[in-house]
Amino acid sequence: MKPKSIILTKDQIPRKWYNILADIKMNPPLGPDGKPISPEMLAPVFPMNLIEQEVSSDRWIDIPEPVLDVLAIWRPAPLTRATAFEKALGTPAKIYYKNEGMSPPGSHKPNTAVPQAYYNKVFGIEKITTETGAGQWGSALSFACAQYGLTCKVYMVRISFDQKPYRKAMMETWGGKCIASPSPETKAGRDALERDPNTPGSLGIAISEAVEAAVSDTTGKTRYSLGSVLNHVMLHQTIIGLEARKQFEIAGDYPDIVIGCAGGGSNFAGLAFPFVQDKINGKAIEIYPVEPKACPSMTRAPFAYDHGDTAGYTPLLPMHSLGHNFVPAPIHAGGLRYHGMAPTVSQLINEGLLTPQSVGQLAAYEAGVLWARTEGFIPAPETTNALAQVVKEAKQAKEEGKEKTIVVCFSGHGLLDLGAYDKYLSGELFDYSLDDAEIEKFTQVLDSYPKPQDLKSV
Amino acid sequence: MKPKSIILTKDQIPRKWYNILADIKMNPPLGPDGKPISPEMLAPVFPMNLIEQEVSSDRWIDIPEPVLDVLAIWRPAPLTRATAFEKALGTPAKIYYKNEGMSPPGSHKPNTAVPQAYYNKVFGIEKITTETGAGQWGSALSFACAQYGLTCKVYMVRISFDQKPYRKAMMETWGGKCIASPSPETKAGRDALERDPNTPGSLGIAISEAVEAAVSDTTGKTRYSLGSVLNHVMLHQTIIGLEARKQFEIAGDYPDIVIGCAGGGSNFAGLAFPFVQDKINGKAIEIYPVEPKACPSMTRAPFAYDHGDTAGYTPLLPMHSLGHNFVPAPIHAGGLRYHGMAPTVSQLINEGLLTPQSVGQLAAYEAGVLWARTEGFIPAPETTNALAQVVKEAKQAKEEGKEKTIVVCFSGHGLLDLGAYDKYLSGELFDYSLDDAEIEKFTQVLDSYPKPQDLKSV
Repeated sequence: MKPKSIILTKDQIPRKWYNILADIKMNPPLGPDGKPISPEMLAPVFPMNLIEQEVSSDRWIDIPEPVLDVLAIWRPAPLTRATAFEKALGTPAKIYYKNEGMSPPGSHKPNTAVPQAYYNKVFGIEKITTETGAGQWGSALSFACAQYGLTCKVYMVRISFDQKPYRKAMMETWGGKCIASPSPETKAGRDALERDPNTPGSLGIAISEAVEAAVSDTTGKTRYSLGSVLNHVMLHQTIIGLEARKQFEIAGDYPDIVIGCAGGGSNFAGLAFPFVQDKINGKAIEIYPVEPKACPSMTRAPFAYDHGDTAGYTPLLPMHSLGHNFVPAPIHAGGLRYHGMAPTVSQLINEGLLTPQSVGQLAAYEAGVLWARTEGFIPAPETTNALAQVVKEAKQAKEEGKEKTIVVCFSGHGLLDLGAYDKYLSGELFDYSLDDAEIEKFTQVLDSYPKPQDLKSV
Repeated sequence: MKPKSIILTKDQIPRKWYNILADIKMNPPLGPDGKPISPEMLAPVFPMNLIEQEVSSDRWIDIPEPVLDVLAIWRPAPLTRATAFEKALGTPAKIYYKNEGMSPPGSHKPNTAVPQAYYNKVFGIEKITTETGAGQWGSALSFACAQYGLTCKVYMVRISFDQKPYRKAMMETWGGKCIASPSPETKAGRDALERDPNTPGSLGIAISEAVEAAVSDTTGKTRYSLGSVLNHVMLHQTIIGLEARKQFEIAGDYPDIVIGCAGGGSNFAGLAFPFVQDKINGKAIEIYPVEPKACPSMTRAPFAYDHGDTAGYTPLLPMHSLGHNFVPAPIHAGGLRYHGMAPTVSQLINEGLLTPQSVGQLAAYEAGVLWARTEGFIPAPETTNALAQVVKEAKQAKEEGKEKTIVVCFSGHGLLDLGAYDKYLSGELFDYSLDDAEIEKFTQVLDSYPKPQDLKSV
């Protein structure tokens, strides 16, 4: 029997994260006055040890032992050859996937939820607030907080709260508290309810509520946590790619193409950044972040300063953005329905180190169903976007008769998203197109902000 | 970092199943005439290669390479030390769990679904029918059939079909066809609908429909498949315990107590039988199958001949049985709501090699929530029953100040059963008790059947 997976031993697990900030120049985040913000300005929101990581340019950062102990619940994660998927596509390409669906919440999110909970704990914090859309991030943070005895409060966008009661049950099984946003508990929530008592809520409002709940705790024992976009989140996720790089070494192989879906950018960055490092050091390799055509921040939106949230409470971040008021079509990949893109990923696109791609919803589910019927694991809706790109590359390799090596981040399983598969199989899902005028309408707001510099690091 | 899991390499995966029939005597299954049935009588229902396994007394049976190739999607499964659970219980006991929740459908069921699909394929069968209650077995068989290009049709008890639409979506994502039972497609279904058009259905009716659909296909290309109870199902599951035994060898440890939940008996048998072999060969070890107090076939029902299904279509099997008309209380561990117990497990109880235990529903969920908050993975409702027994043993070890080694089968995750956790956390779940008169009422039917012999093998 040829081994299907390359499994690292427990002592081969990476002990340091890779920090891409050591290798690229970045535009700084800006405050409301248009000037670069200082770390101290973030202190009411995040614990200082995480702020230090956010701004660090050390290339390697130690993973603390108590974090490794918890990651060991499901890590190292397998790197698996998708032989049955290859066969079904009749491609000469070798397709490997890094399986991040084995964690207790079923996605890559706990790779950062665990260290974030740990650093908060060490800093003396007792309670963490956050927002969640579809529920993946809120679940991961609830799981992580249970590991360190922290209280976790999740503001969940009301429409998802109502549609996905199992996500709330999941968070509460781990001891988290999940409430529908907008809630009457915060000023931001009360204001939103006053404007529209029947509002379905939004990620923007939920972020505002979570931040307000953190900074308004006068004991100083509460902080806020974000599951994507920021530098320290990308840093924590690099364990994915660092493991994969070791696994390729063991397999005696190396990817020609690296693929991951990208909403805020964290699972993509997690797999890709260590390979970006190799590319900076001269390796010939293509690296593709993949987004839905319905939310094309990387492929069709400008690189600009914009707020991370809809309400405009966060600092201005340098990123590819559709504008913070952009409302994407109701595609089922909730984790990819974000107007912006991580500043690090955005900068790497500008540098030409990444080549963004976009796929339609139907092609995504088609790839997802083929994956389930061959490789077994049912992919998360987000993950199907990456798989659709893999299908494109595999078909191209077939046409060209080239034996390419592809690696994709299988960011999570879809066992809590089976309703979307049901709709796809019943022919009730659609592709969405977006015309230039609509993008222009939403990106106009960016004109009023400072422009990021066109930095070249490499 | 101390390794949390013992991971076998791919070449350490067992290549043979252990057949307990080599080591114990069994009463034969009986036909409608009260005489032992011959293998040929089962030929319209199962393919002959599986029937041969059902009656084989070879101690070791080779696992075919194409089966190993598919099992390699998620096997070998980790044996993990539940250090955080131990710590929360303050016990000197060492608790290990064999994690069967990593398979694509999330339970141990594909360990037998995969070889069953394979043997059917090899025998020239094109379509497999089965029934499913809560949906775990139907999901596993749909997954397995997709691997070998077989058609899968699942008759799902109507009440579960309506309550758990995601299970249907799961099966259909894998290409299976799932319909509510009773259906108008079979005589058994039509009769049931005529008796009561609004019937919620039952596992008994669903079995009758699936068997009828298989045997009435005049092309001879359809067979029926069962997910528990039978000898060949237990055989396929022994890969769990064979892996675990190797992993204990690597860890330099050996269990004092082996624990698994038991409905039909297959996950329990899978972990336990290799250790039963050791016990027969002289090892001092306690082995506990655990059932819910609401469905106490092992702890309170007689050893007798009874039908495997409610309608009485199957042969008479020698087993601990509450009577085939027994209707258990609506506990959420759907996989444990079965009136009988696998004949092999039942015989081992008679031999004194196993010591059955029972737990209440609230103790089970209490253990399940503690597990989720410590070890991370949310257990399936069935699995929580085994965990409740682990808690009992761990507390006893604490009282006695003894360092015992416990191993438990973590039969599956509960990500499709979060509604039950929601109810538990909201105080809406109950314990059920069963008085002797009720058990007597249901077991009276057994008086009309032949009596199995009191065989002593060891």
